Parts: sequence; structure tokens; C-alpha cells
Amino acid sequence: MPTIIDIADKLGISKGTVSKALNNAEDVSETLRKRVLETAVEIGYERNRARKGTTDKLCVIVENLNHKDPTGFGYGIIMGFKKLAIPAGWDVDVVPVTPEEQKAMSYDTFMLAHEYKGAFAMGLTLTDPWMSELKTARTPTVLYDNYVPDNMRVSYIGVNSDEGFDLAVGHLKKLGHTRIGYLGGGEGSYVTQLRHDAFIRAMKNHGLEVKKNCIGRSYFISECTNKFLPIQLRSRVTAIICGYDLMAQAVLTQCMDLGYRVPEDLSIIGFDDAPFAAYTNPPLTTIRQNQEALGNCGFYALNSLLNQTAISMLLLRAELITRGSTGPVRTWELARPRKLPV
Amino acid sequence: MPTIIDIADKLGISKGTVSKALNNAEDVSETLRKRVLETAVEIGYERNRARKGTTDKLCVIVENLNHKDPTGFGYGIIMGFKKLAIPAGWDVDVVPVTPEEQKAMSYDTFMLAHEYKGAFAMGLTLTDPWMSELKTARTPTVLYDNYVPDNMRVSYIGVNSDEGFDLAVGHLKKLGHTRIGYLGGGEGSYVTQLRHDAFIRAMKNHGLEVKKNCIGRSYFISECTNKFLPIQLRSRVTAIICGYDLMAQAVLTQCMDLGYRVPEDLSIIGFDDAPFAAYTNPPLTTIRQNQEALGNCGFYALNSLLNQTAISMLLLRAELITRGSTGPVRTWELARPRKLPV
Repeated sequence: MPTIIDIADKLGISKGTVSKALNNAEDVSETLRKRVLETAVEIGYERNRARKGTTDKLCVIVENLNHKDPTGFGYGIIMGFKKLAIPAGWDVDVVPVTPEEQKAMSYDTFMLAHEYKGAFAMGLTLTDPWMSELKTARTPTVLYDNYVPDNMRVSYIGVNSDEGFDLAVGHLKKLGHTRIGYLGGGEGSYVTQLRHDAFIRAMKNHGLEVKKNCIGRSYFISECTNKFLPIQLRSRVTAIICGYDLMAQAVLTQCMDLGYRVPEDLSIIGFDDAPFAAYTNPPLTTIRQNQEALGNCGFYALNSLLNQTAISMLLLRAELITRGSTGPVRTWELARPRKLPV
Repeated sequence: MPTIIDIADKLGISKGTVSKALNNAEDVSETLRKRVLETAVEIGYERNRARKGTTDKLCVIVENLNHKDPTGFGYGIIMGFKKLAIPAGWDVDVVPVTPEEQKAMSYDTFMLAHEYKGAFAMGLTLTDPWMSELKTARTPTVLYDNYVPDNMRVSYIGVNSDEGFDLAVGHLKKLGHTRIGYLGGGEGSYVTQLRHDAFIRAMKNHGLEVKKNCIGRSYFISECTNKFLPIQLRSRVTAIICGYDLMAQAVLTQCMDLGYRVPEDLSIIGFDDAPFAAYTNPPLTTIRQNQEALGNCGFYALNSLLNQTAISMLLLRAELITRGSTGPVRTWELARPRKLPV
């Protein structure tokens, strides 16, 4: 295991200076401190787990997620994480990051600079600089809804998408629906890719046809509601599954505006069971992710990594929460076509 | 939640008699006891978690696995399970079962009769009576290497097979191998199916061709060594990945008997890192499953189920342990064909 002496030798400076730089002493320049940190990361230096007079710190990285108020999806996950981490003696910092901040400092350097022993990261996209670095990063890290195949120091936790879509498609099929559309997020995120694929597999497993014009995906909700939704309605889908609840809520509103009754003319299903899902009109049938349980699992997986047990993936069961936005397929549908307002 | 009064009402007997039957009183006939237990299961009765004067019990079900001595693969898993369960206040019984015993008493009835609050099951096959029952069973159950899709009371733990085969095929490819065979277990088990599919995916991911006659599968090791191995050797494979270490050891011995040198003429890789894998001649390169960590995860998942958190699957990272049974592809192979002893 490399020590601060190795850093000192490599940079040709004294051990004392390295120590000062690592401990944020004021008489070390920012430039030198950065060089020390980068060298430390480069040679694989790790801080001792328990340093006198300090509490061990973990970091929750948040991007693209509302986590500050209880109506946000990230809030419950962070609560679940903290509820296990804090009693176990960890300090937990919640750190929002942007792609720009990720460009400014490498992942491992950031973690070493702030003395984080491990991290739980939510909402990183596939194009984020830190996502590429995580393929070889040394900081024990648990990713919510992101998977890195080869790194023994990184775990993936989430909800089993295949099970979720299987339940949703099964529910609709029981209600008589066979022409089912999908509207989901863009290709920039691992989990939207996963959910899209899970929808297609679920349809096939239930013996239903997936039509090309019944799939719409965009980073922008408005593109889905204004462009792909009308195409699907013209294709006479009787139900739409959405990749996440916010999308489902927007689709619900747009359908109502277009004169469709939900669920009489069209059934709609979301994904997440976000806090607002029970309060849409009608309330949203959705695939639940248990947020607090996700946070619990996040801590369990991180704690395992910190104890040299590498979890590859930990997926919770998905659960279908049936509310008012789904109902039997309109019976006339089976008899004869009707012109719908589009 | 149904109570013993509901059982009593249903059977038209007194509450006292039901209580006696559930608590193994001697003045209740075996026939009546069985009827009480079956009715209890039928209506969804569950014992209270903490009954005065008793310790809560968990059950480790074992089938088709050597678990009694430290050289057996199940031994380390059970150790890992017990190391967490016992300090948490659980009694743990290890119960070997046969298909006949499974036929004699339904799964939930067995668990209720023996007052087990939950179970960790290893080695069940797809044709086992209890495997079918687990689709709807109510007893919180964690399955090692078996997956039941729809039951919120059942979890699956194991090692990520895709990662394992990806590492194995990648290792062989780096050594120059392109014609790689597979010899694995029969179709009666979930995990042998999984490993077979993972081999094929890994070959495709690495851009290598999977030839039909380079895949051999049987419940009987001898069928693989005597029938499929010669076919693969005639097809001039330069490496064989085996579905489990015992198969790899048999293949190794058979190849030596046929006059092949390992790894000079043929590289061989196993799966599991069973205790004997380091002591074959040459020692076996293999995909490791960390047994103790598997047991730990088994308890974590079961504890989660008992606390109403349904884990769908928890997969550990696979690790490739490189030993003497793999080496560079024989160089003449690239130049010209040679007649091999078959």
C-alpha cells in the first residue's frame, strides 16, 4: 500500500509538506495541494480508515434529481441511506455536482481531497466525465441506476425493471389492452435505456406486438407529448406506459386537453411512484420503487465494498400500485373503430 | 392477519386444540396436527415473530451440495450465513432435503410445522416440488442460484455469471485463443442454464464464434468427458470453459489421459473456485464465487425480507483466479494443423 513517503519521493518534496497538503494546511499553495492530491490518486494512495479526532465521511453525489424537499424523488432515498449510515458512525455529506464540476477535478481526486471514504451516486448520466472515470476509479462507490461492468470497487443498485414492466404489461393485458405504447426518456441515461428494453421484453413475454410508431423517447417531455403522443393516439393505442411518473403526468394532462378520458379512452401507467403520483387526476397507476429501501440498500452495498465484499448488483422487487389511471379497454374498441379527437 | 381463531372456525374445533396442534402437544393426533397446519398455511396464518421462551429459528435447506466438511462448496456459504444470523439472535438449522421429502409435505407447511420464520435454500433443482411451490409460497425465502420472478417473499442471490464468463473469455482471448468450447451441467438447474447462456453472450461480446459442436451439456460428468469432450477436441478447440470446477477437474484428468498437455495443448477454466481448485495438477484457473460473502448476502437478503424489504436479486462480482491450467494458445496452431491424439 503506497504511503505519503511515496508521494513525497515522486514529487521530490518532504513528507511533512505532503502531509500538510493532504490535511489542508494553510501554508501550502493550492497548486501544490492539487499536485499532491493528483499524485496520491495516481499511485493509489488511500487515507487510513480511522484518523484520530475525525469522523469518517461518506458522500452522496446528486445530479439531475430533486432531493431537497420531501416531494422530490431523491429525498426518500437519501433518508434511507442516512438512517443506516449515521447510526453506524458515518458523517454523510450530500453534494450536488454538475458536469462542469466533474471536468474540473477527477473523481478520485475529489474524494481524496474531501476525505470521503466512499460515495453513493444518484443521477449521473452516461456522458458525465465521472461516469467514464468510474470504470477504473478506486473510491468505493455505489451507483443508483447506473452499472459499471468491470470495477470491483463499484456496485449498482436499483429496482428490477424487467419485473416492473412485466407487472405493468400483465395488468394492462388482463384489462383487455393489446395495443400498448411506450413514452420514455432519452438515450443519455443508463436507466432509461434499461426501461425501454424492459418494456420491449415484457411485451414479447406477454405475446404482444411492439409497433415502431408506438415507442417514443426523448430527453424532453414536451417532445413526447407534442410529437410522439399524437402518433401513438393515431395508431390507436389503448394504453401507454411511461418511463417515469413526471412523463406520465404530462401525458395524462395532454390527453385530457385533447379530449381523451383517462382511463375510459386511454389507460396510463407511470414508473417510480413519486410522491405526487397519488395526487394526479385521476391518481396514477405506477411501478413503485421503494425509495427508503433503495437508500438502505445503497448503504448496505457501500458498506460491503468498504469491507472488501464486491456486490455487482442489488435489485429490489418492483411493485405495481394500481390507481385510477388504468381501466378496462373501451369495449367498442373490440367491435368497431371510432374517430378519436386528435 | 388471520389468527388461530380463524383456523379453529374453519375446522370446527376449539382454539385450544389449534394452539396445542401448532405447539406440538402430545395429546393431539398426527392427522389432526397435519390438518391444522395445512389449514393454517391455506388461510395465510403466520406465527408471531417473538414467542415467549423461544428463540427464533431460520432454516438452511440443502440439496445436491456437499456442506458438511470444509472441502465442500456449501460449507463456506453456510458459515457466512451463520456468522451474521447467530449474533443477530437467530437459531439456524441446516436441513438436507430430498425430492421425496418435498413431496411428502408442502413447503409452507414444513416451515410452519418446524417454526421456521424464514429459509435460505441452496441446490434446489427446477423439477423439485418445492421450487414450483416457491412461486406462491409465503415463507420469506432466499434462494442461492435460483430465481422466482413474481413472489415478493422470495429473493435470489448469487454471483454475476455474465461478468464471470466475460472475464474468462477475455482472459483466453488475450492468450490468443479463439476456438473455445464449453462443457456444463444439464438443463435441470437454473444456474447451469444461466452459465450456458452467459458463455454464449460472452463469446459474442468478444467477437468470437460459438460453434454448435463446441458446446456440451449433461447432468452426468462422464457424458461430457466421454462424448462431448472428444467432439470438441476433434473440432480443434484450444481452450474449454467448464460450468463448474468438478467438471473442469474431470476434463483436465481426461485430457491428460488422452495425451494432451494442459495448458500447452489445451487451456481449461472452471467455475466456483471450489476448495480443491488450487490443488489440481496443474492448479485450475477458475471464476471465483466468494462463498462466505454469498452466505453473508443470503442472510442480508433474508433479513430484508423479514423486514418487508423485498430484494429481487443480489449478485456478487465474479473474480477470475488465474492459475496454471491456462496458457498461451500453442503457437503452431496459428501456423499449421497437427494431428492430435483422440
